[in-house]
Amino acid sequence: MGKRVAIVGVGMSKFGELWDMNLRDITLEAGVSAIFDSQVKGSQIDAVTIGNMSAGRFTGQEHLGAQAVDMGGLGNIPAYSVEAACASGGAAVRHAYMAIMSGEHEVMMVLGCEKMSDVNQSEAMDTMSVASDWEWEGLFGATFPALYAFMARRHMLEHGTTLEHLSMVAVKNHANAAHNEFAQFRRPVPLEVVMKSGLLADPLRVLHSSPVTDGAAGLIMCTEERAKEFTDTPVYIESSEQAGDTLALHDRKDICTMEAVKKSSASSLKEAGLKIDDIDVFELHDSFTIGEIILTEDIGIAKKGEGGKILEEGLTEKDGKYPVNTSGGLKARGHPIGATGVAQIVELVLQLRGDADKRQVDGAEKGMAVNIGGTGATSIVHILGR
Amino acid sequence: MGKRVAIVGVGMSKFGELWDMNLRDITLEAGVSAIFDSQVKGSQIDAVTIGNMSAGRFTGQEHLGAQAVDMGGLGNIPAYSVEAACASGGAAVRHAYMAIMSGEHEVMMVLGCEKMSDVNQSEAMDTMSVASDWEWEGLFGATFPALYAFMARRHMLEHGTTLEHLSMVAVKNHANAAHNEFAQFRRPVPLEVVMKSGLLADPLRVLHSSPVTDGAAGLIMCTEERAKEFTDTPVYIESSEQAGDTLALHDRKDICTMEAVKKSSASSLKEAGLKIDDIDVFELHDSFTIGEIILTEDIGIAKKGEGGKILEEGLTEKDGKYPVNTSGGLKARGHPIGATGVAQIVELVLQLRGDADKRQVDGAEKGMAVNIGGTGATSIVHILGR
Repeated sequence: MGKRVAIVGVGMSKFGELWDMNLRDITLEAGVSAIFDSQVKGSQIDAVTIGNMSAGRFTGQEHLGAQAVDMGGLGNIPAYSVEAACASGGAAVRHAYMAIMSGEHEVMMVLGCEKMSDVNQSEAMDTMSVASDWEWEGLFGATFPALYAFMARRHMLEHGTTLEHLSMVAVKNHANAAHNEFAQFRRPVPLEVVMKSGLLADPLRVLHSSPVTDGAAGLIMCTEERAKEFTDTPVYIESSEQAGDTLALHDRKDICTMEAVKKSSASSLKEAGLKIDDIDVFELHDSFTIGEIILTEDIGIAKKGEGGKILEEGLTEKDGKYPVNTSGGLKARGHPIGATGVAQIVELVLQLRGDADKRQVDGAEKGMAVNIGGTGATSIVHILGR
Repeated sequence: MGKRVAIVGVGMSKFGELWDMNLRDITLEAGVSAIFDSQVKGSQIDAVTIGNMSAGRFTGQEHLGAQAVDMGGLGNIPAYSVEAACASGGAAVRHAYMAIMSGEHEVMMVLGCEKMSDVNQSEAMDTMSVASDWEWEGLFGATFPALYAFMARRHMLEHGTTLEHLSMVAVKNHANAAHNEFAQFRRPVPLEVVMKSGLLADPLRVLHSSPVTDGAAGLIMCTEERAKEFTDTPVYIESSEQAGDTLALHDRKDICTMEAVKKSSASSLKEAGLKIDDIDVFELHDSFTIGEIILTEDIGIAKKGEGGKILEEGLTEKDGKYPVNTSGGLKARGHPIGATGVAQIVELVLQLRGDADKRQVDGAEKGMAVNIGGTGATSIVHILGR
């Protein structure tokens, strides 16, 4: 194995409807927390990468890389902004991974952020459509809930998945989020409440969907050599892989599977020299609960069609064989779009360091994060190890 | 010198007001042209990076990386989107440079694009403000013409730069664009017409400003080893450097200079082992003509304050000592924001291959491109050599 990239610090802002903070404040909070956690000095940071989907529409500000360095007082260092819809955070992690592996930078700050609550719900829904195929989906009224509803309906038809299965994901993730101080929703929800929540896009109900969230997350990443300067408990990126698919859902052969997830998770395991059973803890993109079900199948925790069955068996509970979304996931931790992929990595780092408190998976040594853009047009997978 | 990154193909769409094409069509045209120019097969492309500023606002579509791969029929390969305001194109080139240097990819397509004419002029001006500091500049009415007008006014006061100097840049660049088949404006403009054109933001007039443009540009980049498969005339990236500055103009010590340009151009020369006099041809970011004047000073063609003087001396003419913007520059080739940084590289590659036709600088061996984001909060410099 060649040189590796290490993560030596993590930070989060609160996730939620942050009425008294703007995008700048939120992002700064995550970045400063990551600096404090890492013991890295601001002057030791060579460059910043930030992931964000649509601040241009949500807040009127692009050029966020430059803004992040500016407000952090980090001087004239390079700043990069990347976007991959809901996978923008994972794209930022992967960007920094490549920048460090290329030799261009040694110590980097990685940020993900989104401020979604400053526009009304209708505008927020419109803006989320920028991640779908606007000309062939969004323009005709196919919102994200509608697109995921297609997947859910088909999965029910082909594989016998039930409304109860869709709801069990929400129950599990809300229960986990109750122990996460940064989560948007910290209240457990009973199964019958999820099942009877308002209809969003049949069969999906409100409590099958992630919320509109403001929030940011941050990491300090560096070369393996430099990591020793900053911490005794570095976590390493064992592999970083990405794959894509058609932008529009209707162009795919099978909407019950995400080809990009199958490819990127398989190649990430191969690259890390691991099998799926070697992974101790998972963060899987559950923007809608059907998403988590499909992802457990596509990464190989469950056979295709049995994502509901493993929920019944409790395999993805915190103390199950394959703990999924101990953080609360997008469903309950919240889904500030550009922040999500970075927040997934924050959770895995806490788990691998043994710092996850009541959410801790005992003895976790390897973790996998799967961050999805759109309905699966982008999939970014990171495997971390200690 | 270690391994280098090569450019083996270039392509452009027409630049202009392209009423009968959408963002997809324009981008596809540039990408397909680059593939044809390179002799690379689509199946040999490992990944795509696309630079764009604000398609989310201009056209309702983000997730452009996924869209580019999808419409190109390139399969499940990774797709990256990067943004750095008007330096988004340069950021895409630098992203691919790092991705190839990291060993993650061998052959990549790089695209830059923007479709600006589908919104009205007022909305276009508002959208451009996402590249400035929205909360401290844009919100208070400081448009881009206004911000560059501050720089121009101060440069006139401190250094004796004149309205004639500001106008000579436009005259030169329009004359160059007359020979560029992809340029938006191919008609030479006399000095007195520029000087008497409508007032935009005193002292800047309409013909001191780059236009609203639709367009895209593309490159095929690969490792030095792979380059031999595709071409006998590879052009190499001798250095790729980036620096930043405060997002807002008013936070800088001196608005007659761009610190990020000074740093990134100096480090790019150092990295390439070259002096400024070794560079044969330059593409410098002239979104407003004062920009080209400031950049010639900051990269070291002229002493500070003498950017006007070297125009009088004809040093930056096509047949001068330091040819600047043989393509016509942003001023006359046009400035589709995310495409500009890539189009600068296309021009340098044509020059170094000897393919620049009537714009050819005899025997050009080294070229430098400087791509600016905002009022200089981002500067990305590439030096190319053959």
